[in-house]
Amino acid sequence: MTQDSAQISKRAGELLERLRATRPLVQNITNFVSMDTVANALLALGASPAMVHSIEESADFAARADVLTVNTGTLSPPFLEGGESAATAAHMLGRPWVLDPVGVGGGKFRNDAVLRLLRHRPAVIRGNASEIMSIARIAGLNPQAAAPRGVDAAHTTDEAFVTARLVARHHLCVVAATGAVDLITDGERVLRLANGHELMTRVTALGCALSAVVAAFCAVGEDAFEATASAIAVYGVAGEMAAEQANRPGSYRVAFMDMLDAITPADICARLKVL
Amino acid sequence: MTQDSAQISKRAGELLERLRATRPLVQNITNFVSMDTVANALLALGASPAMVHSIEESADFAARADVLTVNTGTLSPPFLEGGESAATAAHMLGRPWVLDPVGVGGGKFRNDAVLRLLRHRPAVIRGNASEIMSIARIAGLNPQAAAPRGVDAAHTTDEAFVTARLVARHHLCVVAATGAVDLITDGERVLRLANGHELMTRVTALGCALSAVVAAFCAVGEDAFEATASAIAVYGVAGEMAAEQANRPGSYRVAFMDMLDAITPADICARLKVL
Amino acid sequence: MTQDSAQISKRAGELLERLRATRPLVQNITNFVSMDTVANALLALGASPAMVHSIEESADFAARADVLTVNTGTLSPPFLEGGESAATAAHMLGRPWVLDPVGVGGGKFRNDAVLRLLRHRPAVIRGNASEIMSIARIAGLNPQAAAPRGVDAAHTTDEAFVTARLVARHHLCVVAATGAVDLITDGERVLRLANGHELMTRVTALGCALSAVVAAFCAVGEDAFEATASAIAVYGVAGEMAAEQANRPGSYRVAFMDMLDAITPADICARLKVL
Repeated sequence: MTQDSAQISKRAGELLERLRATRPLVQNITNFVSMDTVANALLALGASPAMVHSIEESADFAARADVLTVNTGTLSPPFLEGGESAATAAHMLGRPWVLDPVGVGGGKFRNDAVLRLLRHRPAVIRGNASEIMSIARIAGLNPQAAAPRGVDAAHTTDEAFVTARLVARHHLCVVAATGAVDLITDGERVLRLANGHELMTRVTALGCALSAVVAAFCAVGEDAFEATASAIAVYGVAGEMAAEQANRPGSYRVAFMDMLDAITPADICARLKVL
Repeated sequence: MTQDSAQISKRAGELLERLRATRPLVQNITNFVSMDTVANALLALGASPAMVHSIEESADFAARADVLTVNTGTLSPPFLEGGESAATAAHMLGRPWVLDPVGVGGGKFRNDAVLRLLRHRPAVIRGNASEIMSIARIAGLNPQAAAPRGVDAAHTTDEAFVTARLVARHHLCVVAATGAVDLITDGERVLRLANGHELMTRVTALGCALSAVVAAFCAVGEDAFEATASAIAVYGVAGEMAAEQANRPGSYRVAFMDMLDAITPADICARLKVL
Repeated sequence: MTQDSAQISKRAGELLERLRATRPLVQNITNFVSMDTVANALLALGASPAMVHSIEESADFAARADVLTVNTGTLSPPFLEGGESAATAAHMLGRPWVLDPVGVGGGKFRNDAVLRLLRHRPAVIRGNASEIMSIARIAGLNPQAAAPRGVDAAHTTDEAFVTARLVARHHLCVVAATGAVDLITDGERVLRLANGHELMTRVTALGCALSAVVAAFCAVGEDAFEATASAIAVYGVAGEMAAEQANRPGSYRVAFMDMLDAITPADICARLKVL
């Protein structure tokens, strides 16, 4: 069921180069905490970010952008409206969009919001293990899954394994539960990657930025599973390389942005860990 | 009236270790400028930040969080509603919350907002000297206190001394007026600390982040006066250590975040300046 | 038509020193992505930033601030209301304000917003070449000008030359179209500067921060054309100096903030490139 490491590395390197050559326009409807980091991560990698969330503009912009992310952090009714409107537009135009269900499981408003967004068929759902398990619970797929307390993961990706596959099959999309181990599945194919670094959890919004990077890869790759795996491979390897430059959260954030710019296909081939 | 430096250092070190061991969940209803810095400062220190401000979620989340901050920067009616709702919930559950009255004194909307928030009984008010003096003025405690012009302090903490004690007694809370000298009082006890560095005023939102750090310490310390003093001690010493690594605002910001991660109880003992 | 390089450098150095001596209070009504960077750039340079955008406060604050910027990124009806209200107040008080028409040309809502803001007579319009060309198009001055796709420039400043002068004459203001070459005109005088560095396009919000820096210089210079040229000269030289310290976007951002603090009149004299 897993794929060969060399093949995944090669594909990730190809998509990275295509991304840098074509600079896809990524529309981000994301939380206030993450906007700076999301925009800078996309720019460092070589994509073109745009933050357009208001109901007056979000759907029109989705028709012009190559790809869209909708993130449910710091959620409010206007952002949800803007997000739904953009997601509908993207879906109707056959364009991929990525859902980052930040904090899902944390209460009725956010759960309902995620259920509404899911109707517009994201190509990828990217969250931590607890968020993926909460989606299964609120969608009635796995009522036993426990709710997390804050916005940080309370489960490992291994615990989320069965649930992630259920969610992928039910919603006909790719599901990525990321953490110490990253699990990617489209319901059939399953991949587990083990790059990244603990310091990534000590800098805010690096999960949100990963979702945007997944979107950027979806804009240049035909297959959402491959694109998601490639994005997570690149991000994890960059995270590992950054930890060789900096060992505290302030300087790590800077080094990580530098590495998104510096990383090459050869780095991915040399370092990718497929479990 | 002042306490012994060794005793304060020891207490600050103990609370810092408890904070890192228990990772309190800190809900932040804070201004847009500061969200990135507040989240990163809490993560660097070892706490778990969450930004949840919408009226749909803020009170529910306050019931799950360990502690709350409400900050009045970039204030708008929806944020005020969300803040009041969370503050009421925190107060009713007997949980401490910290008010950062950014820009109070600057106009009717913000002054009224602060008066409304004060009704929900913060455990700590943390501001600069001008903000603390403005609170006294708008609450009718000290009508002579002058209004500041922008969001930066126009007074020293020594000028705020009598006023801070009045505010603490009237609102039955801890008041911290921070600046070149930091003044902490619960109306009876008074403490003056003199760490920190001028570069802290050259990076935006470090005051807002201090309020969130005070909240994190309130989550692990029983006594709000001690917790506030400990937070300010840790923050000021980290600020001083950072200035030994960097002498310009861009790199200082990075060094400061690193120091919130690196600082140890021994650093506090070696460097704390109690006046 | 161009001015002498030595004269411009000298003036830029004088205004920089005046700015640092007087610390003008700059009110920023700017997009969410840029707030952190705008505030930090102003602080690093030596000005005093304040973000006050709500309709409840924006006009009152404009009456107290030295200068105002209104930026149309992440635009929503409440921000537009707040921006219009502040711009009216600034205009009526005879105080300069700077319009940064982020993303203009990208749709009816944003175009209408920019047209409404233009009625309140900005002293300076600062955008990329595509945005300046879009303003001409939506104002009916140059119907052929093409619309950009995202928020990044699709035109060079040379292409915008004729259009920028038209816009300046029609709106009786200074127009700055910045990019690899920076074009500044008040309809009569024209100046082209060629400092800066490609890495400035790889960090989000550096354009927004430039608009705020232009505003800060307008607060200390009597002539908006000179003030704008001075601001752009300082910013571009700082950008070039930062590129000698860092060659990746993460560390470049840090180095750039440091250089806004470090730059001296002598640096400007030694490095300014007037075309």
